[in-house]
Formats: sequence, structure tokens, C-alpha cells
Amino acid sequence: MLDYQAILETIHQNISKIDNRGIVASYIPELAHVNKNTFGIHLRTLDGKTFGAGDFQKHFSIQSISKVLALSKAMELVGEDIWKRVDVEPSGNPFNYLSLIEVEKGIPRNPLINSGALVIADILVSNLKNPKEDFLNYVRTLADDKSINYNNNVALSEKKTGFKNYATANLLKSFNNLTNPVDVVLDFYFHQCALEMTCSQLSKAFYLFANKGCCLQNKLHITNQQVKRINAIMLTCGFYDEAGEFAFEVGLPGKSGVGGGIVALLPKEFVITVWSPGLNNKGNSKLGMLALEQFTTKTKLSIF
Amino acid sequence: MLDYQAILETIHQNISKIDNRGIVASYIPELAHVNKNTFGIHLRTLDGKTFGAGDFQKHFSIQSISKVLALSKAMELVGEDIWKRVDVEPSGNPFNYLSLIEVEKGIPRNPLINSGALVIADILVSNLKNPKEDFLNYVRTLADDKSINYNNNVALSEKKTGFKNYATANLLKSFNNLTNPVDVVLDFYFHQCALEMTCSQLSKAFYLFANKGCCLQNKLHITNQQVKRINAIMLTCGFYDEAGEFAFEVGLPGKSGVGGGIVALLPKEFVITVWSPGLNNKGNSKLGMLALEQFTTKTKLSIF
Amino acid sequence: MLDYQAILETIHQNISKIDNRGIVASYIPELAHVNKNTFGIHLRTLDGKTFGAGDFQKHFSIQSISKVLALSKAMELVGEDIWKRVDVEPSGNPFNYLSLIEVEKGIPRNPLINSGALVIADILVSNLKNPKEDFLNYVRTLADDKSINYNNNVALSEKKTGFKNYATANLLKSFNNLTNPVDVVLDFYFHQCALEMTCSQLSKAFYLFANKGCCLQNKLHITNQQVKRINAIMLTCGFYDEAGEFAFEVGLPGKSGVGGGIVALLPKEFVITVWSPGLNNKGNSKLGMLALEQFTTKTKLSIF
Amino acid sequence: MLDYQAILETIHQNISKIDNRGIVASYIPELAHVNKNTFGIHLRTLDGKTFGAGDFQKHFSIQSISKVLALSKAMELVGEDIWKRVDVEPSGNPFNYLSLIEVEKGIPRNPLINSGALVIADILVSNLKNPKEDFLNYVRTLADDKSINYNNNVALSEKKTGFKNYATANLLKSFNNLTNPVDVVLDFYFHQCALEMTCSQLSKAFYLFANKGCCLQNKLHITNQQVKRINAIMLTCGFYDEAGEFAFEVGLPGKSGVGGGIVALLPKEFVITVWSPGLNNKGNSKLGMLALEQFTTKTKLSIF
Repeated sequence: MLDYQAILETIHQNISKIDNRGIVASYIPELAHVNKNTFGIHLRTLDGKTFGAGDFQKHFSIQSISKVLALSKAMELVGEDIWKRVDVEPSGNPFNYLSLIEVEKGIPRNPLINSGALVIADILVSNLKNPKEDFLNYVRTLADDKSINYNNNVALSEKKTGFKNYATANLLKSFNNLTNPVDVVLDFYFHQCALEMTCSQLSKAFYLFANKGCCLQNKLHITNQQVKRINAIMLTCGFYDEAGEFAFEVGLPGKSGVGGGIVALLPKEFVITVWSPGLNNKGNSKLGMLALEQFTTKTKLSIF
Repeated sequence: MLDYQAILETIHQNISKIDNRGIVASYIPELAHVNKNTFGIHLRTLDGKTFGAGDFQKHFSIQSISKVLALSKAMELVGEDIWKRVDVEPSGNPFNYLSLIEVEKGIPRNPLINSGALVIADILVSNLKNPKEDFLNYVRTLADDKSINYNNNVALSEKKTGFKNYATANLLKSFNNLTNPVDVVLDFYFHQCALEMTCSQLSKAFYLFANKGCCLQNKLHITNQQVKRINAIMLTCGFYDEAGEFAFEVGLPGKSGVGGGIVALLPKEFVITVWSPGLNNKGNSKLGMLALEQFTTKTKLSIF
Repeated sequence: MLDYQAILETIHQNISKIDNRGIVASYIPELAHVNKNTFGIHLRTLDGKTFGAGDFQKHFSIQSISKVLALSKAMELVGEDIWKRVDVEPSGNPFNYLSLIEVEKGIPRNPLINSGALVIADILVSNLKNPKEDFLNYVRTLADDKSINYNNNVALSEKKTGFKNYATANLLKSFNNLTNPVDVVLDFYFHQCALEMTCSQLSKAFYLFANKGCCLQNKLHITNQQVKRINAIMLTCGFYDEAGEFAFEVGLPGKSGVGGGIVALLPKEFVITVWSPGLNNKGNSKLGMLALEQFTTKTKLSIF
Repeated sequence: MLDYQAILETIHQNISKIDNRGIVASYIPELAHVNKNTFGIHLRTLDGKTFGAGDFQKHFSIQSISKVLALSKAMELVGEDIWKRVDVEPSGNPFNYLSLIEVEKGIPRNPLINSGALVIADILVSNLKNPKEDFLNYVRTLADDKSINYNNNVALSEKKTGFKNYATANLLKSFNNLTNPVDVVLDFYFHQCALEMTCSQLSKAFYLFANKGCCLQNKLHITNQQVKRINAIMLTCGFYDEAGEFAFEVGLPGKSGVGGGIVALLPKEFVITVWSPGLNNKGNSKLGMLALEQFTTKTKLSIF
């Protein structure tokens, strides 16, 4: 039987010795202030045990990790109709993501790249009564924690400087793949990304993806088949143009965010969340990737 | 000696027999109402003679033709500094013009594609006291005609539906190649494109490009070297991804607009303007292209 | 307990009622003669049970399925050095696979697209004494079946008409990512792809990927970690630009070939092979994909 | 009246003071031996006067300059049918020229990029009795000089190392846009490029493009309209992705080669040839470009 606590602590110790910790995202000014030396790791098993090491109770900006939660809510609301507006293929292309939208006539490659996530945000804006409030409540329900909140300063910061997201949303609009006004969709999207959560809270929020669609509070949100699809998308598309590398080195479905968080999971077994704010040159948490590699190497657990 | 009047009339007659007149641009609702059967052609020689046939005194939306006038004004104002922010190469790429901006890190290929024209508009906004008013006065001076004006409905129409231009401007902004706010630059740009002029007025306005930089009123606006460069850019980049075809078939520097206008010129000799609102599949005036081909075939005049 | 035999038979019956069976690959003349109505499916569990329905004992050209076997042999021979010459990311790009090689300076995206497979072939040519003979023996060992052979006519057919592969190999050579002469590498590669096997033989040959690197004859060829990596690559890259779709709909690592075969596997559980020669517009077996979707839907088995 | 001899000599002096002379092409080993400090310039007017400075009588490898001569011969042989197999648009794309062939399904952008020149070579191979001999005679006739010859070592050198050209030819073949065997077309093409000529000989050979299709020996090879088209293609496509720059800075139709030569011309006036083996980062002669800029600045001559 694996001693998860000991493993997490060993990883924490290994990581704390590393000097080259990557670069903290600075394009969102609010994110640039984060202490590079923080590191947290947390694991929750399906039978209710939890393990943690380091700063696993500190809040950070979950950023793109929120795309998976938005996707699951959208699937709950409108089902398979999503796939008329967004595809499920890896983008494979680091350097010109707007061009892909042009080449493919407004259909984003998958819901985890920015363009696809904007389409999902548009779906949520159309189908939720009070989009920002309702989505927040959804995440609070999943994580069974009413203290979770948006960081409005981060959202505002994105609003002022997120020109590439404005470009993307307008391009989608020009292809008729955005039904709400650009500003409305982006306001929602910037808030969604500005959720602040701890490793521990994220392990709870992603519990349903390891548990056939049932959240911690035992409420069924999406079907088992939908869960499998979300996990498949995380595996093939969850790490920008490093998705193959993550599948290759770690071998778990997961999703990263530029805040330095990564959530990954082994279906029917556990959810693991790691946070280290320094990013590698692909925009994924440098030490977070390393920590998860060490974890699957030590435990020999992976979907493969 | 060439009988220009007879040649223009023959061309007019040939053109009027053609049924397949292309498709009128409909993405700007205001432009969609234009009568497809209108056709005008007008020529002004450097020694002051003018010739015309058809609807050469009717106003139309000059759209992208305005990019050449904006470029010349920008060169007058800031000189060669322009070329730090925009290149002079043909784009060669019909299908993904936003991707080019990404691949080339925010430096548009040339000042006659939309992205480049937005950078030029940004330069004018920064360097003119009252940008819209001053630019209008510049065009009125060039054409020696104070009646020329913007069509505000067309500008407003673009403002509401020009999502691709918003996408482009935001993308430039994300690469720090737009100094003014996106909305301000686009408001100027949409007005610039919404200038309404006749064939006759355009032949006057472009006179300086055939006359070493001196306008009709004998005022020197730009140097002879600058004129040569503008003409070179028109030849290599004036017709989107049909620039090679136009150089090949017509052999004159020129610029088209989606309103169906084309202005072309033979340095030291003449300016010729043609207007037919139906476009071919590259977005250039179908019969305008044909009329100019017939003109250079009949007259054997070309820069080559 | 699942009744695999009943499930395979039901799928076989469902499939046999379908009229639209896709298009048989005709670019290799030798493949065009295959009977479109053949269909075979075969499953082998790790505890030694086998199940089959339809034409699971008929031979077909395994084509790109061979890339996985070549990859495992190359990993056995040279280990992680492979990854200096080929990446592990999905290509994401159907329409311009040669351009990717240019953009990425001769490093193919992954070993399962043609360019990557040619690099692997080059490695085998360099590291095997008698490449064609030795590779054939490797496959015979894996499948525990000495009757397996190349179809020389198919290899010859490719040699005469495989211009795109010649283009790819020469392009790799121009980037110094092919050490042997183009003709030698292609001769090996065309033979590798021209292996003829049955569904039943393929289920045996892929046994090691479900069994931690141990083949049917209980010989360890590659490490468990290497197996996980090969499975990860199959999942993210095994189906051209339909890899995401396959992960989404089927949820198993697998590999298809233009001969109409698909092999997929659930680690520690089973290998399943299906064959139907008609392809969909992405080049994967149309009914093979469908059969595997039905299989994972019925059994609720998947890595996710 | 311009004193061409004085102007050429001044340019020669200016150029000889420059230290940074670019990089001599080394990918063809035979070319790497050329003395970087050589520089020649030569001008021939239509009224028969000639002027020269520096090494204008030394032979160099004309390389891509030959593409214009091959194009004119192909137009003479098969006329406008050429344009079914190759387009006339600038490529605009430095970094992935093979991808363009894929995107555009085997139709090269223009006859002056390698892919287009290979299609032209294929046309010559199909339409000339003894392709290499006949083409050599054509060039000798144009230049009125029977001493002109191929450098077989250069051709052989390309044959051994020109993998990118092999890739291109095979890719064209895969799109059915090459009728002869790849090896036959490339053998012709490598010889065509391996022509050795002096500045003086090139000024004679290109005489027909300034003289309405009539060569020095007063033989009409192509029509005036065909000449205009060739000149238009040289202007828009003659300098890879620096065509716009050349039109902008020099303003003459011209063609460069990696041997360091450039030929340019002013219709009805003159042909000018310059040679300096060091290339800039776009593959055009660094000092050759500069010399021509100085020439058109000093003489104020250009087509614009």
C-alpha cells in the first residue's frame, strides 16, 4: 500500500532544493507579485483520504484550470450541442493560435485553448441566469466550500490588458461563433479565470472527474460518458503544446493554469493538485510538472 | 497619338455587355444597396486633359483606396520612421492574415493590408491635431475639391460589424504596435475608409503619385523618392493576393477597394480610375480589373 | 463479468448492416483490390483468452500500425536518444504535414506521423544488422508466429508511387535528420508498412504494450516506463488529426493504418484489433472506429 | 545626359570600401570557394553602348537568374498554357515554401521560386528535343556568345546535396504537377542553374526583356506582352521574400541568384548586371542590392 503522505513530503523536499524555478507570469500585473518560492501539493483519494505538503492551503489564481470547470458546466447545461461550435482535437500549434481559427473558419480546435474556452464562456453566458454568480456557486458546490471567490483585481487587470483575448473574441464573432457581445463574454471569462483557490479546494472541485460525474456532495452533475470525454480532452489538450509531453512523462489527464497550478487525476482513484508559480517556456508550471513526474514515477500509477 | 476618349468609350461599351458582374460587397450593409450595373471610368493626364465614360461623376465608397492616401500623409508627417512598424513585402496569403501578424510578431507585412493600414491610422491619430478633420482636409486639398466628405452611415455600419478589424487592432495592440486606444484608431480608420468620391475626384487625388509628389494645386507633399516607394508598394501589394495577377495583366501601380473602385497610374503620364461595384472572389472589382486590362492592351502602356 | 464473445458478435452484426463503409485506399494500387465488405474483430486478454468475430483470420496490410512496432524496437535498441530526433507532441495539422517539418527545422512532431516514422526507420536501418530481416523476426517473435511476412508487391507499389514519402525523406535529409541514404531508408520503411497480418496476429504482437513490455513469449523487450510512453503517444498521436476524436469517443491508446486495421489496448487488461478496409475522410477505418466506439460503450471500459 | 561609366565607377569605389560583405553560399560546396571580395557591375543600353567596372568579365554561377531565361523559353514553346501549372503571385513566405505547395495543392506560387522553376524545367524537358543542349544554345543565342557553358561540377554538387530540391520535386510529383521522372527534371534543373556567365554576358542575355522580346541578334523570341508579364513577375517575385524591398528601394524588375549575381532592367532603356558573392540573410547579394540602390538613387531612373 502506498504511503501518499510520505511521497508528497519527499517530493516537496526534492522540489525545495531546486533553484531554477521558472518565470512567474507577468502579463497579468496582479499575478507578478506572487512569491516564486511557494510550493504546494495535495492529494484526495476517492475513499475520502487527503494528503498535503507545503503551501497546499494558500490561495492562487486558477486561471486556465477554470476552463475544465466551465466545460463541465456547459456540458451539464446544453449537452453534446457544444461540439457543433468547438472541436476536440489537440491544437499542436504554439505559435499562431489565431491563425487556426481562421483556417478552421471560426471553430476552435478544443475547449481548453483560449478560443475554445471563449466559446464555452459564451454558452454559459447564454444559459445561466446570472452567469458570474451562478458559475461561482457551481464551483462552490463542487468544492463544497462557500468561501471560494473571484479576485476582482485580477479580472480587472485582464480586462485592461488582455488584448489578445479581445482579438480572439472578435475573430470568433466575425465567424458568427459568439452570440453575446464581446465585452460581456470577456467580462465573464476574465472572472472565471480569476477564481482563487487552494490546492486542497481544487482537489475537491475536480473530484467529480475521478468519480463518474458525482461531486463530493454526492450530486451527479454529468454522466460517466461525459466525464470520460472531459478526461480525454484534458489528456490530449490540457497543456497547450506540451500536452504530448505531459501524457508521455506523467500519464494522467490534467490541466494547468498560468497561475502555476496543475490539477491531475487518476479515474476511480484520486485527484492531485500541485502549485508552483514559476512557469516553463510553454507556460506550464515548471516545478509542478516535475512534481507530478516524480509522483507517477514513485507510485507507478498512470492511466497507461 | 492615343485617343483616350474613344478608348474609354469603347471599354465602357464592352463592359456594359457583360452579364456576370461579380458580387457587391455585403458585409458592410450600407454598401450592399449599390446598383451593380453602374460603371464609370475616368483618366486625367499630367498635362491637364481629362476623359471619362459612364458614371464617372457618381460617388462611391472608396474603402481601401484610402489606404494609399493615409500612407502618403503618414510619410509626409513622420517620414521613414513608418518602416519600423510596418514592412513592405507582399503578404501572399489570402486565407490567414491574422496569423501573419502572429508569425511576424506584430509587424504587418505592408501598409496596404488591413493590419498595416491600422498601424498607419494609429500614426495619423498620433500626429494629426484633429485626425478625422485634418485627414479629410488633406484629401480635399489633393483633389482640389471641398465637397468631398465621409459617409458617416458607412463608418457607423463598419463600427457595428467590423469584428475582424477589432480583432486585428487588438492583436496589434497585444504586440505593442498600436499606441492609441483600439476604439480611437478604429473610429478614425472606419471614417477614412468611408470617404465618398467619384472617379473624377480620385483621378485628381492620386495626381501627386504620377507627378513626383506635387498635387494638382502644385504643392509638394512628399518627395519623388517617397512617391516611387508608394508606387512600388501599390504594385506589389495593392490587390491583396491578386497583386501579381494585376501586375501581370495590367502592369500599373494601383489600389482597389471593396466599394468597387480601382485607381491606377503611369508615372509622369496619367491617373486612371474605374468603378464597378461587383467584386471577384479576391475582393477586387471584377469589371474594373477587366477594364484596366483592356486599357493597357489597347494603349500598350505599362511600366513594364 | 463481461461476455466478450457475445459483445464482439453483436458488434459484427451491427456493422454488417451498414451500407456506407467508407472508401478503400487507392493510392497504393495493391491495396485497392481489397473487398470492402470484409470485417474482422479480435480480442486477447492478458490472462490468455481470445475472442473473435468476422474475418479476424484474414491477412491485410498493416501499414501505419507497423510504426508502433518500429518505435518499440527503436526504443529497445537506442533508448531515450530517440527523442533528440523526434518530438512527442500531436501534430494537429491535417493539411500541411511537410510544412511542420520546415517550421520545426527537421524535427518531426511525433514518431507516428510519416516524417517521424521515417526517422525511426532510419534509426532501425542504422542499428539492425539486416534491417528488413531483423525487423521481420522481431514482429514474428512478438506475435509468436513465424508465418508473418512482408508483401513485396505492396512494398514495390509504394516504391513506385510514394512520391510524398520521397519528398518527406529528402526534406528530413536536408535538415540532417536522416543519416542513411533516402532510398535505403524508404526501402526499409515501405517493407515495414507492407507487413501482412491478421487481427489475431496483431492482438498477439501488441500484447507487450498491455503487459508492461513483456511479449507473449514472456520476454521483456522494453521497460514498463517505455510502454507507458508508447501508449501515451498512441493516445495523443495514433490517429492523425482524429486522435482527439478517438480519445474522446473510444478512450483507448491505439493505432490505425490505411489498410483499414486498428489496434487498441487497455493496459493490464486486453488488446483488441479490428479491420474494415473502408476509410473515413481522415484516413482511419470508418467502421473500425465505430466498432471500437460500440465496444467501449458496451463494456464501459476505457483508460478514462 | 547621364555619364553611366562614371556612375558605375563611383559605385564600385563605394562598394570596395565596405567590410561587411555578407556570407558566400556554402550549401553548394563548389560555390563556397568564390572570393568574397570580387565585385563586378555592367550596363548595356538599348542603343548598344556598354559600361563596366570591377570584375564584370569574370564568370560566376548564375543559379536562380537562370529561372527567367527558362521561363522565357517555356513561354516561347508552349505559351499561356504555363499558367495552368504555376501561378503568378508573390509567395510572401520565407520560412515554409514546401507548405505552400501543400496548401495550394501542387500549384507553385510563381515560376521564380524553386517549386515553380521545377515545373518550368519539367515543361522544357517535355518540349525540347535535347533539353540541356537546346537550352544552352538558347542562352548562347540570347547572349550572342558561344563560349557560355554549364559548370558540370556545380551541377553534380547540387545533385549530391540538393535534398530540398528533391523533396520539392517529389512533392510536385505527388500532386501530378511533374510529368517527367524526378531525376530527369532535376538533372536538367541543376545544369540550368549551373550556367556560368559574366556580368557582361548576362546584360546581353537579358537584352530581350528590355527590348520587347527581340534579342541582340534581332530575333523575336517572345511577344511584347509576354515580355511585360515576365518583367511584372520579376518585379513582384524576383527576390524571394525581399521582392517588396527591392521594388521599394531599387524600383526595377530583376532577378537574383545565390551565386551573388543580380540582373535588373529598365524597359526600353538598359540592362544592368551586378555581381558580389556575399549574400544577405534573405539570400540575395548584399552589395549587389546596395549597388543597384545607389544606381537608381544617382540616376533617378526607375519604373515608378
